[in-house]
Amino acid sequence: MTYAEQVAIEEIKRLFARRIRAMDTKDWVLYDSCHTLDATVDSFGTLPEEQRPAGSIARGKDQILAMIKKVVDGKVKVTTVHHAHMPEIEITSPTTAKGIWAMEDLLWWQNGDVEEHLRGFGHYHETYEKIDGAWLIKSRVLTRLRVNSTPDFQSYYYK
Amino acid sequence: MTYAEQVAIEEIKRLFARRIRAMDTKDWVLYDSCHTLDATVDSFGTLPEEQRPAGSIARGKDQILAMIKKVVDGKVKVTTVHHAHMPEIEITSPTTAKGIWAMEDLLWWQNGDVEEHLRGFGHYHETYEKIDGAWLIKSRVLTRLRVNSTPDFQSYYYK
Amino acid sequence: MTYAEQVAIEEIKRLFARRIRAMDTKDWVLYDSCHTLDATVDSFGTLPEEQRPAGSIARGKDQILAMIKKVVDGKVKVTTVHHAHMPEIEITSPTTAKGIWAMEDLLWWQNGDVEEHLRGFGHYHETYEKIDGAWLIKSRVLTRLRVNSTPDFQSYYYK
Repeated sequence: MTYAEQVAIEEIKRLFARRIRAMDTKDWVLYDSCHTLDATVDSFGTLPEEQRPAGSIARGKDQILAMIKKVVDGKVKVTTVHHAHMPEIEITSPTTAKGIWAMEDLLWWQNGDVEEHLRGFGHYHETYEKIDGAWLIKSRVLTRLRVNSTPDFQSYYYK
Repeated sequence: MTYAEQVAIEEIKRLFARRIRAMDTKDWVLYDSCHTLDATVDSFGTLPEEQRPAGSIARGKDQILAMIKKVVDGKVKVTTVHHAHMPEIEITSPTTAKGIWAMEDLLWWQNGDVEEHLRGFGHYHETYEKIDGAWLIKSRVLTRLRVNSTPDFQSYYYK
Repeated sequence: MTYAEQVAIEEIKRLFARRIRAMDTKDWVLYDSCHTLDATVDSFGTLPEEQRPAGSIARGKDQILAMIKKVVDGKVKVTTVHHAHMPEIEITSPTTAKGIWAMEDLLWWQNGDVEEHLRGFGHYHETYEKIDGAWLIKSRVLTRLRVNSTPDFQSYYYK
């Protein structure tokens, strides 16, 4: 492992952390600064194509931002907590890298008198690209080990 | 990022981990060794001044130690688990740094026949200082995304 | 901290992450590649000898693999999520190291019509050895802060 790779790994960990913190604090300007222009996000990496909600893959940073805002900061305000762990970052060239993170997410929202809740577990599989000296997220696929939720959570989430 | 900064980041991560481990294992000698003499801790960083419990900001390492011992290892023994994630550490000079960590804490204590429980989520915002060759925690503010607890937990915790 | 130590710490973090990911995704070939031939695992480090399930200490990588497969991927399929945090890695020689990680584990399995569940918290205490250029896990002791489970979980788990 070269010194430059060591630095890149730490920078990528920090980028990853910033993206999650931006999401959970709903800082959408910061969130938007974390992805490449052409980034793609697939939050249902474990589901076969035919079981996915329509438009479940976001293509381009504008779609990525629009999707996350719609889901957690639209008509319904969702409190979100995302924690990720034990990164395995591999630098594949001076300007490209990939990483796997174990993750947990918790979401709460008010559905009339009922508080809906989701708690999920899985892995983020990401790729990164260094552009103009800064590492950015180029792709993300979320695979799941387990998802628990209150009965009506999904009806909202997938609509 | 210089090599010295890389080393400092790893040392600060380890310091942070040691403080949390000391708290959860109730090793108060180790805990006390983690803060600067003049350290400050604000565990209610999200609350406006008027809603805070009296004396909620600890000033100086003696107050910090006294407060945590009173809360979790005084008349009432509280089992605590603190997990923190995705550090964003920034070295601001050869002897100063700051960091943000996503966190979760879980507390359990026996209230007569009832087991009280708290589970919270948020961020630690810390600053660090290097004194005599060792990094120490100089300040900590805890902001919250969400706190769940059994009904009587707060009455104890805030008293 | 030398540069070689910095690299070793990152390599050990990645090794640790790989072992956990292999366990939770039930990739037993990958799992088996993470331990030394003579590795030992004690998953009940907090219990006195007389309270432990028989054979609770696995000796050698074959026993380690057999034990974990029996517990989570035998007759009963257990969904597992292990998350570990805040590593304190210390390089004790060019080819040996030790580390402490805070941890949480979640297990679910179907017991007839009932879903059993365990959620535990504690610390992994590991040692590592570098063999033929690759870091491997040489020993692991799990100590516990707290374990919650459904009533019948233990009867299965310890049998």
